Amino acid sequence: MTRPKGFTVWFTGLSGAGKTTLATALASELGLCGLKVEILDGDEVRSNLSKGLGFSKEDRDTNIRRIGYVSRLLARNGAGVIAAAISPYREVRDEVRRTIESEGAAFIEVFVKCPIDVLAERDVKGLYKKALAGEIKEFTGVSDPYEEPLDPEVVVETDRETIEQSARKIVQELTRQGFLRTDRENARSQTPIRIEHVPEAA
Amino acid sequence: MTRPKGFTVWFTGLSGAGKTTLATALASELGLCGLKVEILDGDEVRSNLSKGLGFSKEDRDTNIRRIGYVSRLLARNGAGVIAAAISPYREVRDEVRRTIESEGAAFIEVFVKCPIDVLAERDVKGLYKKALAGEIKEFTGVSDPYEEPLDPEVVVETDRETIEQSARKIVQELTRQGFLRTDRENARSQTPIRIEHVPEAA
Repeated sequence: MTRPKGFTVWFTGLSGAGKTTLATALASELGLCGLKVEILDGDEVRSNLSKGLGFSKEDRDTNIRRIGYVSRLLARNGAGVIAAAISPYREVRDEVRRTIESEGAAFIEVFVKCPIDVLAERDVKGLYKKALAGEIKEFTGVSDPYEEPLDPEVVVETDRETIEQSARKIVQELTRQGFLRTDRENARSQTPIRIEHVPEAA
Repeated sequence: MTRPKGFTVWFTGLSGAGKTTLATALASELGLCGLKVEILDGDEVRSNLSKGLGFSKEDRDTNIRRIGYVSRLLARNGAGVIAAAISPYREVRDEVRRTIESEGAAFIEVFVKCPIDVLAERDVKGLYKKALAGEIKEFTGVSDPYEEPLDPEVVVETDRETIEQSARKIVQELTRQGFLRTDRENARSQTPIRIEHVPEAA
């Protein structure tokens, strides 16, 4: 019994850009399509795998490598993974991509893009205000680097799109890569899988 | 699509008792039966997930919880896992058991048993000699506790059994729990799965 290869949808983006929200929406959307995925959320992983690590470049890289290691194990066993961590450094993201692709699984990098002034304006957790006032060291995008992906599979712009529109872009990429059937194939199948339940944007 | 529940075969036992060797033999045996499993070896996990942790009770427990976390993710996605770490403390092993069983997956505790005088006699890595001479603090079974499992699913005695005999006990338990087909079912199937290729002991 050889399991089909799995995939990792890898979100990268600033704090507050909407990674966790989008991960949850996407997982729910994929669930409706009959595709169960595992969410590895940055905060949850820090508590389960990386307690004690800080926010230096080295510690951030270690944290990302651990998420990558778990993603790789899951993906090579045929599971689908959504990883949602800031993952600010390009080099370690690319390293994770290589380890996952070397298993014959897919790595789909999603740049969760939102301008920093919008994030500072929203500032749900009040962190940007503190960071901009110099009260938080090593705050990504303010006092710590964020390296945008150069060639991500998907870019979502959370200040311009609804969550449904962003999720749909990723669903389309997963469909293109063969992890979900297209509507035409669904129409032929006996138990149609609903992919595009998301209403069109106005 | 609901994946079938997976399982975790959890080895516990002293250093040098044969956990890694048995894990490799068992994985190979299961591979012959068409069942791919993931080995989470204590040493490998320490390098991938737990670098920086030491051998205090707290750090050991953290390491075991991390292996448990990854095992749980894999098992709930239908994968089979063999975890091979000393895991000296009963309470955290039982905690891992509960988290895995709560996913509807199986936790099969295997006590890899070998008397300490046999281990000190073999002493492949020369560690027992040092530990017995007081040169290694926190060495399980010598200067650090080892809590034997009270009710493991399988006990293998590596000083009295061949590796094949030990592996076979675990294969039998996996068969009993429905993860492998029995010989009778194999005989009926079109592509027989060979389970018992291991020669009988003399």
